[in-house]
Amino acid sequence: MSRVRNFCAGPCTLPAEVLDEVSNELSDFEGSGMSLIEMSHRSPEYVAVHEDAIDRLRRVLEVPDDFEVLFLQGGGLLQFAMVPMNLVPAGSTAGYVRSGAWGKAAHGDATRASSSYVAWDGQDNGFTRMPQPQEIEVRSEARYVHVTSNETIEGIQLRELPDLGVPLVVDVSSDFLTQSVEWERVDLVYGGVQKNLGPAGLAVVVIRRSALDGCAADLPSYLSFPSHAKAGSLLNTPPMFSVYVTGKMLRWIEARGGLAGMAERAERRSSRIYDVIEASTGFYTSPAEPQARSRTNVVFRLADPDLDARFLAETRAAGLVNLKGHRSVGGMRASIYNAMPDEGVDELAGFMRDFAQAAG
Amino acid sequence: MSRVRNFCAGPCTLPAEVLDEVSNELSDFEGSGMSLIEMSHRSPEYVAVHEDAIDRLRRVLEVPDDFEVLFLQGGGLLQFAMVPMNLVPAGSTAGYVRSGAWGKAAHGDATRASSSYVAWDGQDNGFTRMPQPQEIEVRSEARYVHVTSNETIEGIQLRELPDLGVPLVVDVSSDFLTQSVEWERVDLVYGGVQKNLGPAGLAVVVIRRSALDGCAADLPSYLSFPSHAKAGSLLNTPPMFSVYVTGKMLRWIEARGGLAGMAERAERRSSRIYDVIEASTGFYTSPAEPQARSRTNVVFRLADPDLDARFLAETRAAGLVNLKGHRSVGGMRASIYNAMPDEGVDELAGFMRDFAQAAG
Repeated sequence: MSRVRNFCAGPCTLPAEVLDEVSNELSDFEGSGMSLIEMSHRSPEYVAVHEDAIDRLRRVLEVPDDFEVLFLQGGGLLQFAMVPMNLVPAGSTAGYVRSGAWGKAAHGDATRASSSYVAWDGQDNGFTRMPQPQEIEVRSEARYVHVTSNETIEGIQLRELPDLGVPLVVDVSSDFLTQSVEWERVDLVYGGVQKNLGPAGLAVVVIRRSALDGCAADLPSYLSFPSHAKAGSLLNTPPMFSVYVTGKMLRWIEARGGLAGMAERAERRSSRIYDVIEASTGFYTSPAEPQARSRTNVVFRLADPDLDARFLAETRAAGLVNLKGHRSVGGMRASIYNAMPDEGVDELAGFMRDFAQAAG
Repeated sequence: MSRVRNFCAGPCTLPAEVLDEVSNELSDFEGSGMSLIEMSHRSPEYVAVHEDAIDRLRRVLEVPDDFEVLFLQGGGLLQFAMVPMNLVPAGSTAGYVRSGAWGKAAHGDATRASSSYVAWDGQDNGFTRMPQPQEIEVRSEARYVHVTSNETIEGIQLRELPDLGVPLVVDVSSDFLTQSVEWERVDLVYGGVQKNLGPAGLAVVVIRRSALDGCAADLPSYLSFPSHAKAGSLLNTPPMFSVYVTGKMLRWIEARGGLAGMAERAERRSSRIYDVIEASTGFYTSPAEPQARSRTNVVFRLADPDLDARFLAETRAAGLVNLKGHRSVGGMRASIYNAMPDEGVDELAGFMRDFAQAAG
């Protein structure tokens, strides 16, 4: 079958040229007589791949020198536990912004790992907007406030990280490397790579060195940020394939303008779809408040939900796939991550206009 | 370069036919118009791959019905933490057999996660043998005794899991699927797949359902065995590529006689190398006591360590790679996992005989 346009919320589409490279190198990596996935993680070949991916991420994400980049496993979900276990000492607490399904989930896990409190809750407004900085409760004993920069399910995004006078911890899983990070406001940023950066199996943590120094001592080794930092993220066998493909994807991003290039793409491409929604005079609607609309997950509804099945069948037939919204919110969702080609977005915008005209 | 014989202790060699299949399917999985690594982990295509791999592992490892199979991330190392966190309630403890580097490491992490004690320590004998069952201290308040069925670094192996009257927890990372498990003695078995089963990034936990029911409540979700069990190991995005390749490797194992076939291979192939060592009348020596010699990691030394560099250079030139022993024990190590072709072992045995003759 010819290549489809995959709008899945994650894992994500990858550049065709990256997939071709991986396929070509799979059986024999750089003339070594073996596949990269058969190599020792201590081999010079793999260590070069590993360090290159970490250095490249540091460069592309414009990570300041006083932060450490860690490559871990367990996805963003394991970080819901590791972050409070490492950062919140006894007698302290951490605030959680419940801005959507993922903010809620992060808070749920934090209650099981340390003391925590709800710093803001968007439930009453149906998770259609992000909080203003002054709405977020900052307690004097708070070690950090946790925010989710982009809520994948509800399609809302923080356009700027708030300056709260207390360090932020930021879950960037679904807008990783699509906008810059206000590093001076942050102690830790984390996310799985499987949306904007690579294949599932790798999570990235970027942690301020002073926060690393203050982490809990005596955690079991895999759960300890300092253990991973000391070992250069080679404490145990890393998810080598995911690291390798992520490295290739970072090279692909660098060749397309790096972070600035990706931010421009995200803005321009999501706007194309939001513009169609606005121009449809009610045929399509976006539940998110305009200033909070996500640049990576465009959530929208058809005014007539009886047309949902036809919309999905016809997009599928046109090679535009995985547009169904999350079961908890219904409607549609177009996830437009870094590797989505512009043509995919053009085709979707064109389809949506034509569909509204034909059915409206 | 032509394909080398890779005796690495992990990650491991994979069958050439499995690598070819993966390479061919990488850009377009079963005519879907996308790669498996670009798919939603909730897609019917991926879920079929996931469930097939779990079912196949259950069948090949002969897992009884009252055990659950979990697919997790973080390697065996994360299990050093999760096992005591889930299984050891307050007021209870767990015994650890320190049979080598890995048994020691498991105990080290357990001391940080719960109460624990040393049930046996092989340090005094230089980790050259496994304990007899009656040497292992079983305390009345012990929830389990932890054993490492095969010590990868020292090359010693338990040929049978001991019957201690208390459930065992077994780290099978380096002899996974090379010998049968005495399930009636066990509450939990775990291991990374990257030696005998597939590429790095996936860890397997097999847990008795009654133990699952007794796990700690209120752990953060990723750290909780019951959370993963309830979600069918799809609590969050799994390491899809590793699961997919592991499924292929399990099919390859089934076609070669399953567990019995792999056990026969392990016995026969390791014996070929031990026989060369014995027949060399002291040119090569094996530090492990004969009845504890590992069938997957053959550790040996050259009586004259001045010959080490030449041995390694000449094996390398003959396409026999990664034979250097772990830095903590020195000497040589031939790791012979499931996917090593018989020809690789024949070539190594032949080389060793010739080398001893020429240099001896």
